[in-house]
Formats: sequence, structure tokens, C-alpha cells
Amino acid sequence: MRFDLDVVATRGDIEESRHRVHAVVTDTRGTVLGGAGDPDLVTVWRSCAKPFQVMSLVESGCFDRLRWGDDELALACASHGGEPEHVALARAMLATVGLEEGDLVCGAHEPITRRGAKLLQQSGEPPTRLHNNCSGKHAAMLAFARTEGWPTLGYETVCHPVQQRALEQVARWADLEQGDVRLTVDGCGVVAYGLPLRNMALAFARLGDAARQGDDVPQRIVHAMTTRPFLVAGTDRFDTVLMETAEGRILSKVGAEGVHSIAVPERGIGLAVKVEDGASRAQHPAVLRLLQQLDVLPDPLPAPLGSFLHTPIINTRGEPVGEIRPAR
Amino acid sequence: MRFDLDVVATRGDIEESRHRVHAVVTDTRGTVLGGAGDPDLVTVWRSCAKPFQVMSLVESGCFDRLRWGDDELALACASHGGEPEHVALARAMLATVGLEEGDLVCGAHEPITRRGAKLLQQSGEPPTRLHNNCSGKHAAMLAFARTEGWPTLGYETVCHPVQQRALEQVARWADLEQGDVRLTVDGCGVVAYGLPLRNMALAFARLGDAARQGDDVPQRIVHAMTTRPFLVAGTDRFDTVLMETAEGRILSKVGAEGVHSIAVPERGIGLAVKVEDGASRAQHPAVLRLLQQLDVLPDPLPAPLGSFLHTPIINTRGEPVGEIRPAR
Repeated sequence: MRFDLDVVATRGDIEESRHRVHAVVTDTRGTVLGGAGDPDLVTVWRSCAKPFQVMSLVESGCFDRLRWGDDELALACASHGGEPEHVALARAMLATVGLEEGDLVCGAHEPITRRGAKLLQQSGEPPTRLHNNCSGKHAAMLAFARTEGWPTLGYETVCHPVQQRALEQVARWADLEQGDVRLTVDGCGVVAYGLPLRNMALAFARLGDAARQGDDVPQRIVHAMTTRPFLVAGTDRFDTVLMETAEGRILSKVGAEGVHSIAVPERGIGLAVKVEDGASRAQHPAVLRLLQQLDVLPDPLPAPLGSFLHTPIINTRGEPVGEIRPAR
Repeated sequence: MRFDLDVVATRGDIEESRHRVHAVVTDTRGTVLGGAGDPDLVTVWRSCAKPFQVMSLVESGCFDRLRWGDDELALACASHGGEPEHVALARAMLATVGLEEGDLVCGAHEPITRRGAKLLQQSGEPPTRLHNNCSGKHAAMLAFARTEGWPTLGYETVCHPVQQRALEQVARWADLEQGDVRLTVDGCGVVAYGLPLRNMALAFARLGDAARQGDDVPQRIVHAMTTRPFLVAGTDRFDTVLMETAEGRILSKVGAEGVHSIAVPERGIGLAVKVEDGASRAQHPAVLRLLQQLDVLPDPLPAPLGSFLHTPIINTRGEPVGEIRPAR
């Protein structure tokens, strides 16, 4: 199945801009069932890799020794909105192992949800590293190092055992040799992975399927993420709304630069989407259109989700003058 | 001459995202001398049309009756940075005809230069319509209506004589029938124009050539813009730096959604560039690469301009992790 997932920005009846979209759908053996553009496009798998980056912490038993539960697991896999609940949980995770904000190597940035930004502004406080959307992942990495007795200093570097374990998991689930995963640095400072879209989709297909088969660690991760969509993203965020709407049938994870990874466990499929130019404005319409083409979503789309398919462009006068929407 | 003007965002040695770029170079007869992608791509000509939108005001003699000069003319053609100098001049232009900020129909937005935003924040005042990057154009449109005795109310609508005159000029310079110019609404509320890139380039080629030939109105517009680059854009803005570097040999005007228009009068050519997806981050590297290919710029590029060709991507830790640069 070939899809056209391009997204356009219109102004009146004119197509003002166009975003090309690459996507691939695979089964659990990596067979390509459909897609758009180039399934072998290599790009960077950033926040989408979080479920695999936390996996060794759970497998090792360290996670249970910390007495962490589904909330902590969801936040470790999150690109969270920097809302008070996210920040408090990340702080508590660090406190479990006697660490604090200053031990995180991720930089501070404004909360990525409106609610988070508004509440922080009202507090009069500046953003901290805990507000970084990756702070849950970093807290889990630090806790892994602490529990295993590895140094916490340098936990973000490629030679540190925490990053080595993460790379092993990414390679294993994506069915690549470790040497074939290209390495670079993420926005938050840890290792990020260059791999083809096809392998991103495969990793999610296998994660969803393993969870459905009842494999302990995958099941715990998928359960945590799909039952705690707010912790994985935040108020009015796409993954949160999508997973709430899908009621456990879809695992969805946003990544930076227009990359998205999704598992549909009951169908045994994984999806990877890449907006060629990295524009986030095109990402949600493309992902939704693909899910619609695969008959995974209710038709018509429930309103909160539908608002991500067609987004009005509002000018400085508050007038709707166009929209961001699928080209087809 | 076919060029590859694509722009990439790299992360380490990985190409993370790619922006496709369409461009066309024409002479004053509209002959295509070179380009990239599709020279007939139709998109929206927004702020690049400002020199033509102000033209009838000057031709009619109203401009001289207002006793305006090069500063006012430059600001009328500007997408300015909302800096105190821009705001004061826009306010003064309105005052000439007994109008004020509230008569502008453009909405308020934060100044688009860092300096403008910083100074406004320090003042503790909110942004006003005068800070809108188009306020000079709007002030000129209002002054035109006032001087001609037309109603100022509704000056932004397609049926108003101010917009009719602007459309006539756009069609004439772009060598299109008025009916072939597609109409829509700009970010600031006035009429915007849908036309092929080829015609945008032609209009700039003809404008530059007419100025070089000594035609009064084109010469005044080109002179005002090229001798007042700060008023046309602002501190550290691309058009300002490019026109300062070119010392009068290049007329450059940014538009929204990745559209740029340039005249090189001494070469008798016009350029139009469109980043397909509208990303501003790709616009400057693409324009500079095209100008380099045409041997219009000093080699090597002077430092302030060179910083627009390769822009580092800095992560939340302040580390350079990649760059935005021409693909080739």
C-alpha cells in the first residue's frame, strides 16, 4: 500500500507550502506493508527511542529495587510538558537515589505545553532542568547508574554503561548490528541514534507484539505508557490525546524533527513517520492520515483528535486565513 | 543553469532533515536563466510585494505632498524588526495624516528582532500594532487613502482603491493579467498575491533594471531600500546584512513562508526563492548559495553574512550538535 501523506499549508485556496512525508508500516518480521516516500530514509531517532532506552533498567531488576511503578516508567519514556505533575515526579525519582536537579545533564527549557508554561510563569520561577521534556528519561538513567554502582558523572556519554545498555536495546529491537546504528548527540545531551525508518517501525512493531504476547518488560512499558498518556506527553499534546482516544490500542511516541513512532499491538504492526523537513506542524496531520488509511481510528475522528488533522492558520488580526492539513 | 539549493539540518554526521528549495533567475524579459526545482511553482507573494504595493502612492504624487522621504519609503517596503527607530517612524508617518496606531488594521505581535524584543521587554510595555513588521506598509496605505480622499476604513479589503492600485502594480511588474493573480489574505490582513516564482523574479528584474535606467519611481524605491537596510529589516536581520554587504548592488526582500525576492540591477536579473515547506531556517542558506552560484557576492563571504550560510544547531546544554547549511 502506497500512501500520499504530504501535508500542505494553505492560504485561502492557494497551497502556500508543502511538507513531504516519508513513512513505513512493517509487521514484526520487518516486512514493509505500506508507506510513503522512502522506507530506508536514515534520520535520527530521538525521543521515540525512550521506551528502549529505559528497558535495561527494568530488565536488570534495578527498577523494582527502586520500588518504582507505572508512573515512573511512563515518565522515563516521556517527552513531557513540564507541568507541575511531571516536574514533581521527576524530582521524586531523583530523590529516590539521593540525587537532585543539578545531577541532570539536560539543559533547562521552557515547558513545551501551554499549561506548563503558564503555570511556571505564574510561579515567577525560571525553568529548570526538571522542566526539560526529557527529565524523566534522565532521572531513570541516573537511577540506573546509581543502582548498579556505576559513576553518575558522565552518564550521558557513549562509553558509559547506561548508554551502552541503551544502544544494545535499540540495536536489538531495531534488528541492526550495533555498529550499524549511527551515533550522535540529542537535544538533551545523551546519545541519539541514526537508523532507517524501516527499522524504527520494526522496533515498535516488535515492542507492541511482545507486550501483547505477555513478555514481562515490554508489557510493563507499553502498559505504563498507554495507561498514563498524560505523563508521557501532557495537556493537549498529540500523543496524550491519541492514546486517550485509542484506549490502549495504540502506543504513540513523538520525536524531534518530525519523527514519530507508533505500535498497534492488536494488528502486529509498527509505524514510523518522518516529515522530511522536520516541521512539527506537519507531523500530526501526517500521522493521523496514516492511521486513518490503516483503519485504526474511529471514523469520524473524535473532536479533540480531529483538531490535529486540520489546524487553522490565524493571522495577526485573529482571522483564519488558511490551514495545515493533509494534501489528500 | 540548474542549481541544487536544498538545505539540510545535520546532527553529527547524519542528515536529520532536508528542505527542498525552488528558485528561478530571470532577465528583464522573463527568460529563465537558471534555477532549482519548479520555476512555475505558484505560492504566495507576501512581504516581497511591498515595493510594488507602495508604488502608486509615489507615482500619484501623494508621497511628495506628504513631504515624506527615503526613510518613510524604506519603512513602507519593510518587514521591520519592531525596534524603537522603526516604531517611532511608523508612528510619525501616521501622525502626518492625523492618524494613530488604532487606525492600523494589522495585529500586534512581538518584535521580530532580538533587539526589538529585548528593548520592548525592558520598557515593560506590551507590543502594539506599530511593532507589527508591516506597520510601515500599513501607514503608507492609510496615508495614500487619506491623501486621495478615500475612506481609511476598509483600506485592507480587495475592493478598496488602495488595494486595487497595489494589485495593478503587482500584475503589471509581474507581467500577469490582474485576473491571473490569485488573491488571498496576508498575515497582517491586507491582500496577498498568488503567482508563479518565475513572475516574482521577473518583477524584481524589471524593478532593478528600471531603477538602473533612471526611471523616477523605481529608482526612488530601490535607492531608499538599498541605502536604508536597517529600516527595511533591522538589527542582525538577513536583508539588512546582505544589503549592507552588497553596498547598493543588491535589492533583497524577505517574505513569509520561505519566499525571497532579489534584484541585481547591474546584472539585469531578478531572483525568486521558495523553501517548499516554508521554513525560515532554510531560507537564508538557500538565497546565499544561489547568489554565490551567480558570482554576485564576495568570496569568501564576509563574516556577518557567512553566519547565515552555516548556522550551528545548539542543544539545551549549549553544545553545538549540528548545523543548518546548504546540502551542496
